[in-house]
Amino acid sequence: MLMPHARPATSHDVARAAGVSQPTVSRALRGDLRLSEETRKKVAETAKALNYVASQRGRSLSTRSTGQVGIVVTDLGNPFYLELLDQINDTLRAEDLRMLVLTAGSDNRISLEQLVDGSLDGAILTTTALDSTLPEELSRRGFPFVLLNREVDNAPGDVCVVDNHSGGQIAAQELAQLGHTQIAAIFGPATTSTGRDREAGFRAGLQQAGIALYEERWQRQPFAFDSGHRAALELLESSPTALFCANDMLALGALNALHGAGVKVPDQITVIGFDDVQLAGWEVFQLTTVSQDIPRMVRAATDLLLTQIRRQRDATSAPRRVVLPASLVRRRTHGSPPS
Amino acid sequence: MLMPHARPATSHDVARAAGVSQPTVSRALRGDLRLSEETRKKVAETAKALNYVASQRGRSLSTRSTGQVGIVVTDLGNPFYLELLDQINDTLRAEDLRMLVLTAGSDNRISLEQLVDGSLDGAILTTTALDSTLPEELSRRGFPFVLLNREVDNAPGDVCVVDNHSGGQIAAQELAQLGHTQIAAIFGPATTSTGRDREAGFRAGLQQAGIALYEERWQRQPFAFDSGHRAALELLESSPTALFCANDMLALGALNALHGAGVKVPDQITVIGFDDVQLAGWEVFQLTTVSQDIPRMVRAATDLLLTQIRRQRDATSAPRRVVLPASLVRRRTHGSPPS
Repeated sequence: MLMPHARPATSHDVARAAGVSQPTVSRALRGDLRLSEETRKKVAETAKALNYVASQRGRSLSTRSTGQVGIVVTDLGNPFYLELLDQINDTLRAEDLRMLVLTAGSDNRISLEQLVDGSLDGAILTTTALDSTLPEELSRRGFPFVLLNREVDNAPGDVCVVDNHSGGQIAAQELAQLGHTQIAAIFGPATTSTGRDREAGFRAGLQQAGIALYEERWQRQPFAFDSGHRAALELLESSPTALFCANDMLALGALNALHGAGVKVPDQITVIGFDDVQLAGWEVFQLTTVSQDIPRMVRAATDLLLTQIRRQRDATSAPRRVVLPASLVRRRTHGSPPS
Repeated sequence: MLMPHARPATSHDVARAAGVSQPTVSRALRGDLRLSEETRKKVAETAKALNYVASQRGRSLSTRSTGQVGIVVTDLGNPFYLELLDQINDTLRAEDLRMLVLTAGSDNRISLEQLVDGSLDGAILTTTALDSTLPEELSRRGFPFVLLNREVDNAPGDVCVVDNHSGGQIAAQELAQLGHTQIAAIFGPATTSTGRDREAGFRAGLQQAGIALYEERWQRQPFAFDSGHRAALELLESSPTALFCANDMLALGALNALHGAGVKVPDQITVIGFDDVQLAGWEVFQLTTVSQDIPRMVRAATDLLLTQIRRQRDATSAPRRVVLPASLVRRRTHGSPPS
């Protein structure tokens, strides 16, 4: 039994008690297979008996690995990012890595210094703006990173995204097939690839179907519940029969506003979102939405990052871009226009 | 301009260029006020010109401070914890600390080793089970920590919770005043203080009002959407006129199940939750619920932790227990029993 307030055991104590050298203790506890199983077992048992805990800091200096991956996310209020985080966390845990959540300051920017200060093996950037110089700076320093969900033009590093353009197009095609011609849209910020590409795809889809999108029928808004709520009420004044929302948070805001205003979905208006967060499937929403496969995205992004961290790829090899398919999940917020 | 692939500048490069010693560079960049403003400014400008980034690892070794706080949370699927995380993150940022999210493994336990490996200045534990030995072990090692939201009996460290007993009691009193006598309840796990104390408070409140809670009208469930959904449908068979849910996730699951089953809230059944997560206020839910002030809880918990980390309190001083008041937020899911 450990005595209260006893001095914590060191690796030297373990070495002495187990009758091995101190470096052998470290190697044994790291599971170095070049040591005999007997030695590893003896060290592990001795360490346990002495209540010895290996120092992460010590490991960090000797292996140049921190065991930590930074996840850059600015929007903890959007369940999409929470589902991403949850999934990333599970995936990293399985690789014995820890997740450090990094959020932007009031200027909405993550500084280079926060990432390359030596406390991280690599980073996953999830909320990067199109004009961010961060990917370029990280690349210049040879720091392992992956852009997940959002990308920048000519990304100098690995990217994993859903096909946002095609996702927007699918939504427009669905509305056209349902017979809608009076269409409204709440797009995301033009400063993000998700905002820009979903909008471009949606507009392309409407154009192919010969449907106009009138000026008073669309807005660009931050990807947030409150923006969707407010914009939906404003767009209602132009009497559309369908509303495309460039993400589910906007759509959930819109659905709540419509509910509050007594407007029936889909009898009076069709609503389509994008992301397929868990809430989209709840009975009170049953949101028809463009789906991206979050577990698959995270797995792909983590794989890209790990091959960089573990130097399993040549440092001079070209960046990779993984684009996953988007698909429409038809629930209960879509229908024909009211006659 | 930095040349591509140039060797990153070291503190020695900065020292040479600025004409000062290397330790002076470190002190200047830490903002040590014992140096002249002129020196600090010169070093800062030189570091900037050379694109020098101070090493977190270096700082860690010289100051014995890691700048990182661990947040232990097992339930990223519950928006309550996400709102906590978001708030904790903001609060720590303001103190120049970083948040490391730690989640439990498949055995639902966080190991001591994950916390005391030298990579953290302290920890906030949010999802501790009543029988967890972690607080005792951390306390024995003198590791700074605070129990937030959930506590253990005879906690050997600082605690910050809402008055869960009184919150449960308030909910029971409200139902009694509305005239309900046929009452059902979905309680949380008896292995958590929130589960245990909210249940005890609710039962005490019913007893004071002389109302029975029949065996077939209550269940203990994990604090999750799916459990609330399933339990609500099962409890409906005993025809209650009111349903208390020990947290909002259970209540949101119940509301969705009732919506799916075509049961009108509050006309046919009253539903009261606990936590007051943001979703509770959405128009489609308008959930009447027992509220805890999340920002205030987080501020109190962070303050407790910081006084430990900064050794502003005597190590032998008694643990503190901060209990914040609970209050009922009356929205639209409560009413008189159907006549």
